[in-house]
Amino acid sequence: MSSYPENLLMCLRAEPGVHLEQRATKNPTWWPGDAPQDKKQAAVRMKVLAVQLSDLQERLFAQALQEELEDSVLLILQGMDTSGKGGIVRHVMGMLDPQGVEHFAFKAPTAQEREHDFLWRVEKRLPARGRIGVFDRSHYEDVLIHRVQKLSTQAQVEARYSKIVEFEKRLKERGIHPVKVMLHISRDEQFARLSERLERPDKYWKYAASDVEDRLLWDEYQKAYQIAVNRTDNDAAPWYIIPADQKWRARLCVAELLLAQLQEIDPQWPAAKFDVAAERARLEAAR
Amino acid sequence: MSSYPENLLMCLRAEPGVHLEQRATKNPTWWPGDAPQDKKQAAVRMKVLAVQLSDLQERLFAQALQEELEDSVLLILQGMDTSGKGGIVRHVMGMLDPQGVEHFAFKAPTAQEREHDFLWRVEKRLPARGRIGVFDRSHYEDVLIHRVQKLSTQAQVEARYSKIVEFEKRLKERGIHPVKVMLHISRDEQFARLSERLERPDKYWKYAASDVEDRLLWDEYQKAYQIAVNRTDNDAAPWYIIPADQKWRARLCVAELLLAQLQEIDPQWPAAKFDVAAERARLEAAR
Repeated sequence: MSSYPENLLMCLRAEPGVHLEQRATKNPTWWPGDAPQDKKQAAVRMKVLAVQLSDLQERLFAQALQEELEDSVLLILQGMDTSGKGGIVRHVMGMLDPQGVEHFAFKAPTAQEREHDFLWRVEKRLPARGRIGVFDRSHYEDVLIHRVQKLSTQAQVEARYSKIVEFEKRLKERGIHPVKVMLHISRDEQFARLSERLERPDKYWKYAASDVEDRLLWDEYQKAYQIAVNRTDNDAAPWYIIPADQKWRARLCVAELLLAQLQEIDPQWPAAKFDVAAERARLEAAR
Repeated sequence: MSSYPENLLMCLRAEPGVHLEQRATKNPTWWPGDAPQDKKQAAVRMKVLAVQLSDLQERLFAQALQEELEDSVLLILQGMDTSGKGGIVRHVMGMLDPQGVEHFAFKAPTAQEREHDFLWRVEKRLPARGRIGVFDRSHYEDVLIHRVQKLSTQAQVEARYSKIVEFEKRLKERGIHPVKVMLHISRDEQFARLSERLERPDKYWKYAASDVEDRLLWDEYQKAYQIAVNRTDNDAAPWYIIPADQKWRARLCVAELLLAQLQEIDPQWPAAKFDVAAERARLEAAR
């Protein structure tokens, strides 16, 4: 019988034919009884996770540096405006050593990027061996905003799902382990968060008029997410639907996902690439 | 009368004609009485610094994003092997939001980089507006290891000091504020740290046989550092000599330096780039 955290990760996984409107955005009924139940309990668990993640991150970095391992992790963050992508980077990736983190936030493509297929710019930002990469938005925008705003033709969008599946399958084969996260928030929670951005002068900079325009297309976006998740979820590159109305819960979930991925890679301290006794003698002579 | 931390930063500054052998690597006699005196007291202060740095970092990021500000910070870390450059990145830069940090570790130049002048590859890694960049090693290697190991001619090395001064002066004019840090350790402390790398299997990966070779050239390196510091210290791009035998002390000093630099820039929350009342009404209509 599995328990937390294994049980939690199973519940987060997108099941075949997932319906997003049936997935909780807060207080999930399936939340494991032995998991942290509130912000305070989560903070205790996060401290443990910080230590474990830090240890595994350093082993991964070290083993890759010594060319014993070709693996890396790639956290892909997707979600509606205000769903908390930046907060995940700040508070979860922020627990890691910056030397081993590669962060990239995808914006509207540049003129040069538009001259290439939609995966070209993604390839360029893949994490190096031994690193933990994080994409704030990603190639999924090409089947999300492109579908909703009709930035590409229907046929172009349709063709991309299988291209994404193939691309991510190759990533996995190359040792780049995708961890795909959809931060799932409710319409009400988005309203509250957008309102806050209009109330607090220290939040104005996060607000864009287009946020309201996108909100008016809420249902279309949810549909686009659901199609994208259904058509690109697979065991090589699984999707996780994170209840994200409560920030503590979302951050805990993503930290657990990263830990599980690193544990699966199971990096080890590399063997000495030199004669330890001989080097000790050399160092002693140079005392 | 100034007090900590102003007083501390003044003491860290390289004075004209600085003699490195006269600068403390631990327990400095000039350490301010009102500064943290041990690891435990430093931890308390570091928590305060984390909050202040985080706030200023976000203001800097926000104001630059809104194109009201062109500033960035560039922490340049230099120091002998084992002096703790990586630890500074991990524990000081690690206090910041990864979204606003740009880290780069300079290694031996690539074939392509060697086809350009020594500052070409540095220019490419400068932090974007609103970011806090950190260089683990830098263009100073071209007057340090190049001088000691004779990787360049004496004339080439000599010509570089003024090129560096001019380059950094232009950086400052462009709003890229260099904070130049030499992590100053003693020969004995380096011995202890190298020994540890040969004793602990989780540290083997950090050891290179060249570390002992460089150690045998300790005096030459110290001389090269001293010349570099003396010839490139100026008010636009000052050098700070950090007592680095005690890690808690070095990390505290660098965190204080970053805070002072950010306070000097004094970033402010940008004004709303939209009509707040009108946007509130639009959002309400999209409730």
